[in-house]
Amino acid sequence: MILVRQEIGEVLRDFRLQKGRTLRQVAGRASVALGYLSEVERGQKEASSEILASVAEALDVPISTIMREVGDRISVLEGLQVFPDVVPDDLAALDRDIQSQLSLR
Amino acid sequence: MILVRQEIGEVLRDFRLQKGRTLRQVAGRASVALGYLSEVERGQKEASSEILASVAEALDVPISTIMREVGDRISVLEGLQVFPDVVPDDLAALDRDIQSQLSLR
Repeated sequence: MILVRQEIGEVLRDFRLQKGRTLRQVAGRASVALGYLSEVERGQKEASSEILASVAEALDVPISTIMREVGDRISVLEGLQVFPDVVPDDLAALDRDIQSQLSLR
Repeated sequence: MILVRQEIGEVLRDFRLQKGRTLRQVAGRASVALGYLSEVERGQKEASSEILASVAEALDVPISTIMREVGDRISVLEGLQVFPDVVPDDLAALDRDIQSQLSLR
């Protein structure tokens, strides 16, 4: 199951690191407990909409940018979810199959 | 303050109506209480990531599509937030100003 909070956490952490800020700095500016922000970044806690708005502001990143990035990442995950059904269980058998067909040419 | 849950609620409702489904149908398929889903749609309750995934599946809409739509809507709201600073407080005074400058030509 794809969990939005995990992607939100990763996106928030990536933007924070990209801006060279520490958890302490962002938590302080957003008036959020450091431990809580850390859990949000690790996808262990859901961030309320109010906290998300505060953290986005503390990072100087528009919420729309965060949500679009979350959408893009989930889109990749959803793509990956589809592919396994296409890959046969027994890759070795498939390989033998292909090899034998090639040898028939 | 822009609240993500309000946009998520509107997007979920729009997709539900677009698919011609009732609150009862989607709540049943997603195994979510009808009253809860109704509050989520009205932006009054935060939906956990698990519930968001269930509702998205019940609607047959990828979560990525929902989150991108949320990002797009918030982007419009963020744009609207910027404009009021540009509009002067006293529009009547501005109008008089323009009219007097035109009469000077």
